[in-house]
Amino acid sequence: MFRFFYFLLSISLFSYSQDSQNIESQIKSFYDHSLTSGKSYEWLEHLSNQIGGRLSGSLNAERAVQWSKEELESLGLDKVWLQPVMVPKWVRGNFEYASIESSTGNSINVSICALGGSVATPNRGIRAEVIEVKSFVELKKLGVDKIAGKIVFFNRPMDPTKINTFSSYSGAVNQRTEGAEEAIKLGAKAVLVRSMNLSNDDFPHTGSMYYGSVKLKDRIPAAAISTNGANLLSSMLKLDPKLKFFIKQNCQNYPDVLSYNVIGEIKGSEFPNKIILVGGHLDSWDLGDGSHDDGAGVVQSMEVLNQFKSLGVKPRHTLRVVLFMNEENGLRGGSKYANIANKKREDHLFALESDAGGFTPRGFSFDSSDSEFDKIKSWKKYFKPYLINEFTQGGGGADIGPLKSTGTILSGLRPDSQRYFDYHHSSQDTFDAINKRELEIGAASMSSLIYLVDIFGF
Amino acid sequence: MFRFFYFLLSISLFSYSQDSQNIESQIKSFYDHSLTSGKSYEWLEHLSNQIGGRLSGSLNAERAVQWSKEELESLGLDKVWLQPVMVPKWVRGNFEYASIESSTGNSINVSICALGGSVATPNRGIRAEVIEVKSFVELKKLGVDKIAGKIVFFNRPMDPTKINTFSSYSGAVNQRTEGAEEAIKLGAKAVLVRSMNLSNDDFPHTGSMYYGSVKLKDRIPAAAISTNGANLLSSMLKLDPKLKFFIKQNCQNYPDVLSYNVIGEIKGSEFPNKIILVGGHLDSWDLGDGSHDDGAGVVQSMEVLNQFKSLGVKPRHTLRVVLFMNEENGLRGGSKYANIANKKREDHLFALESDAGGFTPRGFSFDSSDSEFDKIKSWKKYFKPYLINEFTQGGGGADIGPLKSTGTILSGLRPDSQRYFDYHHSSQDTFDAINKRELEIGAASMSSLIYLVDIFGF
Repeated sequence: MFRFFYFLLSISLFSYSQDSQNIESQIKSFYDHSLTSGKSYEWLEHLSNQIGGRLSGSLNAERAVQWSKEELESLGLDKVWLQPVMVPKWVRGNFEYASIESSTGNSINVSICALGGSVATPNRGIRAEVIEVKSFVELKKLGVDKIAGKIVFFNRPMDPTKINTFSSYSGAVNQRTEGAEEAIKLGAKAVLVRSMNLSNDDFPHTGSMYYGSVKLKDRIPAAAISTNGANLLSSMLKLDPKLKFFIKQNCQNYPDVLSYNVIGEIKGSEFPNKIILVGGHLDSWDLGDGSHDDGAGVVQSMEVLNQFKSLGVKPRHTLRVVLFMNEENGLRGGSKYANIANKKREDHLFALESDAGGFTPRGFSFDSSDSEFDKIKSWKKYFKPYLINEFTQGGGGADIGPLKSTGTILSGLRPDSQRYFDYHHSSQDTFDAINKRELEIGAASMSSLIYLVDIFGF
Repeated sequence: MFRFFYFLLSISLFSYSQDSQNIESQIKSFYDHSLTSGKSYEWLEHLSNQIGGRLSGSLNAERAVQWSKEELESLGLDKVWLQPVMVPKWVRGNFEYASIESSTGNSINVSICALGGSVATPNRGIRAEVIEVKSFVELKKLGVDKIAGKIVFFNRPMDPTKINTFSSYSGAVNQRTEGAEEAIKLGAKAVLVRSMNLSNDDFPHTGSMYYGSVKLKDRIPAAAISTNGANLLSSMLKLDPKLKFFIKQNCQNYPDVLSYNVIGEIKGSEFPNKIILVGGHLDSWDLGDGSHDDGAGVVQSMEVLNQFKSLGVKPRHTLRVVLFMNEENGLRGGSKYANIANKKREDHLFALESDAGGFTPRGFSFDSSDSEFDKIKSWKKYFKPYLINEFTQGGGGADIGPLKSTGTILSGLRPDSQRYFDYHHSSQDTFDAINKRELEIGAASMSSLIYLVDIFGF
């Protein structure tokens, strides 16, 4: 009897260890494949250098849609399709410039760029006094008397003491998104926002801004100023609070245009109706080529399905890649995707997004129940050899966010964040800022997590 | 009675939590200080751009000695001094070039650089057939018949599947250090070594090589070839195994010269005779400006003492910074330091080295007893907010290595290693490859570890 139990126990221990070894070995093959014969870097080179910046509504965005559809088709997936979605069309125009006019005839050019969604200045530009503020509270205290007719200069820097730079971003970005709307209430003529950048340099960083319910005729231009420009303006204002600032830009909003989410899938062998999603966003800002934001997430997501096909791993659940359109200035692709999924009553078990740059991955965040998170944490051991050890509870990502209402577990790849805001939304976000290995280790980490979700389920 | 015990218990729990909070708060102040008013980045800008590459025995190495001594003196330490050490003097000379000669008149230039310590070619250069090998075993199998009179081309790449790129380096670097010595035994005319680089690019990476006991007259020239050059040469050899390779370089060895380790210290308030050491190496290779190797380690080590002074943290043990001379091609500084320490019977409790690049720190390695390592691991919780979580057993670093024999606990800062070998020992190791925040977080992590060693002791 004793011997029989021991026999059963041995069998069970043996199988467990076998399974665990198989899993470890499968995960190692994802990393080895990505680092030796993965496609992510080559794909990103094409998307960044041969296509380039791909703002929603632009010809380049459509080139990216066609190219990524063809690449997914070449992988031999079970299905590849385009999901139509109407997107905003905002264009930067052909000029944007600004200068600090310290006295008649004396002026210093500073680097600015229009914020996405901003209206143009009048043709003659805007020349006005500047009032510097660090917060909306400070703005309101100054009131109409001090603000009316002036350019409001939001100059609260990102907090350098946060280790997670996305926290620093969260603490400063309302100046960019809501600054104009707040300044309009007090009669400002334009808004200038310190770039969301932790470095001191000459590159302005764009990004979305919104006018809320402000009528078209009441809207004022909004631009980002480089951090060096902001520091210069701030110190010159201390010497001469009456100096004038000149700004001219001819960006423009057009009616919405048709675009697409690009989708591909491998049908699940056991649970074809349960979907595991992996994705990033195909659109980017227009100043750089969007290599980190979010070309990296696009090619890493494509690579996950490429790895399953190339390595002959047949998923039990349906594995779907979604390249979302219009994350940057509207989130129309993410909303549309969830909307269609709800209408079709699709069951999304898990969704993983990569939209935090192509840097060395440090971990994943998860938006799940505590018990699901406990299960996920039991997989940390598989990531130990790859130095992936930050498993945190928190959001997954903007594009997959709308899936939350139907109970999908959301997850986000969390790369090292120290360099991200040096590039984010600026002309510096280009392919040469990508390290091949960092990108590839990120892709393999995503394949590994998706694989664990597929074999263990929820 | 019960109440009295409870009272005692509360006191003890209370003190513990207070202490723990004080430690957390002190550590946070190291990070905050480093990220807002630290000197490491500004120092490195000077060392890299105003001084530059500083190979042992060069004038620039002496400029670096003088500059770092003056900077340490400006911190108001208890003592700053120079420790004399004789170092090798090897100079690159004023030319080094090479080409693949595929047929008469047809030649392609490839990027090479002399390896540190190599002899020159004859004035007319060397023109010979090339034999490509991947290992010493393969070399020996080919034997004198196949090797004599030829250029041996060591072309075993660094293994891209290792996550720790230092492991990939260890697996390939014997080609550079011992390749010439092995090839000489079989009558080779010169040695060409694939650069220790995981990327494909056009930059050759130098580094030390040794002739062992080979007599001066029998030594042959050794050079590194860029990874692109190595790939090209390898594929051309497949088409034409008889092609000729031409190489010419006029590097030279001179007699040893006098140089210095630069040392500064804050006397311990309780244990002045127990020393906690922090350091990096002041010398660098000559091709770039040595920002990552090891300018970063130098300024981070200086920053540790700066932080203790600036933040008014009085160490219980003597805190000493050592900027070692000649790590790259001789380790004379590290050996000399340990030698003098032994003679003076100095008691080194702990030594921390930073010599793995100025990238985001991932953890520390420790060379200690298991029980000491258990104690150290109990400090991991203090590093959690800063995403420092890789505490491993292993070596500390080359310069502090000689202290091991006297029982010192050795430790090394372990930054993310993915990008390191893109720069290492090449013209690409320059200040623009440094991210300010990554460097500063590394410095703060070092201060924090040193602080924990100081308050908890061993």
